[in-house]
Amino acid sequence: MKKRIADFMHRMQDDITNTLHALDQGEIREDIWTRKEGGGGRSRVLTGGRLFEKAGVNVSVVHGELSPEAAKNMGGGQTLGAEDLEFYATGLSLVLHPHNPMAPTVHANYRYFERGDGVKDGAWWFGGGSDLTPSYLFEDDVIHFHQVLRDVCDEHAIGDYSRFKQWCDEYFHIHHRNEARGVGGVFFDDLRDENKESCFSFVKDMAAAFLPSYLPILQRRSNLPYDENNKRWQGIRRGRYVEFNLVHDRGTTFGLRTGGRIESILMSLPETARWEYCHEVVKGSKEEEMLNILRRPREWV
Amino acid sequence: MKKRIADFMHRMQDDITNTLHALDQGEIREDIWTRKEGGGGRSRVLTGGRLFEKAGVNVSVVHGELSPEAAKNMGGGQTLGAEDLEFYATGLSLVLHPHNPMAPTVHANYRYFERGDGVKDGAWWFGGGSDLTPSYLFEDDVIHFHQVLRDVCDEHAIGDYSRFKQWCDEYFHIHHRNEARGVGGVFFDDLRDENKESCFSFVKDMAAAFLPSYLPILQRRSNLPYDENNKRWQGIRRGRYVEFNLVHDRGTTFGLRTGGRIESILMSLPETARWEYCHEVVKGSKEEEMLNILRRPREWV
Repeated sequence: MKKRIADFMHRMQDDITNTLHALDQGEIREDIWTRKEGGGGRSRVLTGGRLFEKAGVNVSVVHGELSPEAAKNMGGGQTLGAEDLEFYATGLSLVLHPHNPMAPTVHANYRYFERGDGVKDGAWWFGGGSDLTPSYLFEDDVIHFHQVLRDVCDEHAIGDYSRFKQWCDEYFHIHHRNEARGVGGVFFDDLRDENKESCFSFVKDMAAAFLPSYLPILQRRSNLPYDENNKRWQGIRRGRYVEFNLVHDRGTTFGLRTGGRIESILMSLPETARWEYCHEVVKGSKEEEMLNILRRPREWV
Repeated sequence: MKKRIADFMHRMQDDITNTLHALDQGEIREDIWTRKEGGGGRSRVLTGGRLFEKAGVNVSVVHGELSPEAAKNMGGGQTLGAEDLEFYATGLSLVLHPHNPMAPTVHANYRYFERGDGVKDGAWWFGGGSDLTPSYLFEDDVIHFHQVLRDVCDEHAIGDYSRFKQWCDEYFHIHHRNEARGVGGVFFDDLRDENKESCFSFVKDMAAAFLPSYLPILQRRSNLPYDENNKRWQGIRRGRYVEFNLVHDRGTTFGLRTGGRIESILMSLPETARWEYCHEVVKGSKEEEMLNILRRPREWV
């Protein structure tokens, strides 16, 4: 089963990077890396193309031993004892930052985690989700993105869109700004209802829905005209993205503390970001419209 | 004494911003802000000028009550009891990011802290320092900067350049990159040797040495020619600056966690920053020369 899941992650990476590369027509760089403590990964990054400023899609398959401290704070922590410290984790993680400020950044992650024998209660779980971060609001885009995610949830007994949507809003919140990072999507963790097969099936469908959830948006926004002011605002939003990832994101802060592969961990950062002192949006502007949504998350479908 | 120190901080802010503004000839924006829990500050930011992409000089004078947790982890923690939770703090903090990639970024901070009655042992201390962050190495600049700081230390019995220089190298270290943020300077904290008057006198001389330590460097580098590649490398070094400040800097992370004035806390961030996946410097290049120094801090004077 571990192998089936890891194989699936690699297959999804192939599908996604092949499709994106065909559209983007830039460079694709692949790095196969290993982790001293066990396992490794395959990182692919697109740059210099038509669509993306920077686009990274990473798969990792790692194993090793948890510290008792780390074990206590993660899924299964309540059920498993201190003896179940061996772990195995595999996941696909991607962040796409388009050039055009009208086209949103998107992030997705699908992961499987095992502790100890990977069989008993609390010894395995899935996590993941995807979320959209536009600089400018196009309601159709947000509704489409959420609708695709909701449809996948609705097909699965364990897929709870309302709960996962709210979880996403809570997770991708820039606390020190009291702003959402973007317009959300779904986020789930410690998913181990029913059995492993049903959870895997849900995660597979979620991952397979990634391209249909995002590509139509990318395609209809990537050719819109834009000016210097739009790029400036995109830079400021990207600054917020950096703030969230470096200050709040659990995966990033954990990786930086524990010495993962830095370039893969920080692959999520945009190529450029901007900080203006006391930046304020103009009243009645498109920028203000976006900011209002980020300050008050909304139901979309 | 509290008032004398706070007045000094404001006077230094005037001197520094007036001098910089005269050279920079851009906009200067001042914000007077108050802190809900007590006190406030005066932030000044220069933008749109000839020399600086972004330059912020902030003074704050705040007071209130420490949490027992916070009190335990700070200067005086060993000597003072849980009853001394009232605090008073005043400080000047500045970060200047020049346009020209040949001109280094500089940071300086001078601060005074009191707990309880501010008289008994451990109830007051000074802290501060300044450090230089070039994108390109000019040895003369680094030697000049360190020499000015060393001269101030040498004039004071409590000024220990060697110790403060090493402290600076240790503090401004980007652990997850295993790189220094820059070429250092001095850093000191919990300074309460001799008496309050001698410590204040040392901090005053340090602050007064700021302009002489930096201005000659700024002036001889701000008119050097540069190209797109130099700007790109400056952007990457600024990305590292953002990483240090958001991930490691104690003042920044404390401020973000405890809800200080966000715009003053993040004033230190450059206007623009850059992250390229797996960026590598060319062998034998000026960029490599800089990186080598950041990986192996050196004695300068």
